[in-house]
Amino acid sequence: MAAAAFLRHGKKIVAIGRNYADHVKELNNAIPKEPFFFLKPTTSYLPSGGNVEIPRGIVAHHEVELGLVIGKRGRDIAPADADAYIAGYALAVDMTARNLQDEVKKKGLPWSAVKGFDTFTPVSAFVPRAEVADAQNLNLSLKINGALKQSGNTSSMLFPIPRLLAHISSIMTLEEGDLVLTGTPSGIGPLKAGDAVECVLADPSGRQLATLSFGA
Amino acid sequence: MAAAAFLRHGKKIVAIGRNYADHVKELNNAIPKEPFFFLKPTTSYLPSGGNVEIPRGIVAHHEVELGLVIGKRGRDIAPADADAYIAGYALAVDMTARNLQDEVKKKGLPWSAVKGFDTFTPVSAFVPRAEVADAQNLNLSLKINGALKQSGNTSSMLFPIPRLLAHISSIMTLEEGDLVLTGTPSGIGPLKAGDAVECVLADPSGRQLATLSFGA
Ligand SMILES: [Mg+2]
Ligand SMILES: [Mg+2]
Ligand SMILES: [Mg+2]
Repeated sequence: MAAAAFLRHGKKIVAIGRNYADHVKELNNAIPKEPFFFLKPTTSYLPSGGNVEIPRGIVAHHEVELGLVIGKRGRDIAPADADAYIAGYALAVDMTARNLQDEVKKKGLPWSAVKGFDTFTPVSAFVPRAEVADAQNLNLSLKINGALKQSGNTSSMLFPIPRLLAHISSIMTLEEGDLVLTGTPSGIGPLKAGDAVECVLADPSGRQLATLSFGA
Repeated sequence: MAAAAFLRHGKKIVAIGRNYADHVKELNNAIPKEPFFFLKPTTSYLPSGGNVEIPRGIVAHHEVELGLVIGKRGRDIAPADADAYIAGYALAVDMTARNLQDEVKKKGLPWSAVKGFDTFTPVSAFVPRAEVADAQNLNLSLKINGALKQSGNTSSMLFPIPRLLAHISSIMTLEEGDLVLTGTPSGIGPLKAGDAVECVLADPSGRQLATLSFGA
């Protein structure tokens, strides 16, 4: 299995929460002392060009995020070794049923359903690692109907990528084809039926590494 | 891919919470109005005969559960059709980092880590559907060092199997090789280093359909 085929063969999506300070503030959450994560099912993948299905009664928020595609099995990965476990990258959106999430947070219930609806992880094509000089200095943006909603740089992560892989793999083994979502910058908000979304991952020179478009 | 090889090829574990009234009471939780679930990674599987690794500082509780092995892809499965999506069964233990779970419940954080450590899903061999006359009338038991800790019958589920598959698949597509854990009866408690665990799945006549043993 090539990591490039992660959409088809990967087994899990591990998504980090609250990893950009500006986003933590906009949701009135506390800055975490250590990284935390949740799982999304791979049945939530939506390749670029598709449509997010928003279930009746759901307020579905977009969260644009850098994805790390895992290239080999790893457990207890040392931060210094983390880079060797990354086969490449993807641009993704962690769609979230925000109104349901508010309810389950109050009740102390799992996040799996509110993050796991079919089509709730729109994702770009695979970006080979060799094309990315510094994953910790990339620009992420998301526009709805042409209006810029989210714009951030991966240098603003509270916990950098090596720390994320070390934390996750101290709990669960990462496998080839797994996708790690690294958190979202501020500007999250609802997506509505008929909206057109355009996301871009670019290096500091402005060169586009990945684009992702989808409807709702 | 044959569903019988779910341990190797399955992509997700969907685990139902609070599905036996006696267990809901022992944890002082509320009886749910509809089923809820969380995801466990397949990297948490531990085949029978292995050892659960209990991380330092973790209070790891056993929850013996009937597992449903999904035989074909399904979304929005009607309760009346649910049986056709089940290729077989397995006996499993949903190991839970109870002290960490108490913390994340208070904070409204995800359950993925507390349920997802490597080795936290001990599981039996596959039981083909044809060997089970009525999955809603099976005895489950768990002994530690020979002492009976959990004993229940699947007829006590608050939400029966067809309702569980309908609920899950209304949110996320189920795929061949996925495992659905159906909740635990009362008697949960901690597992300690050196403990030997023996679980049995049997039909009402006493015929054993699956056994599962593991250490800690
Ligand atoms: Mg969760
Ligand atoms: Mg997110
Ligand atoms: Mg359980």
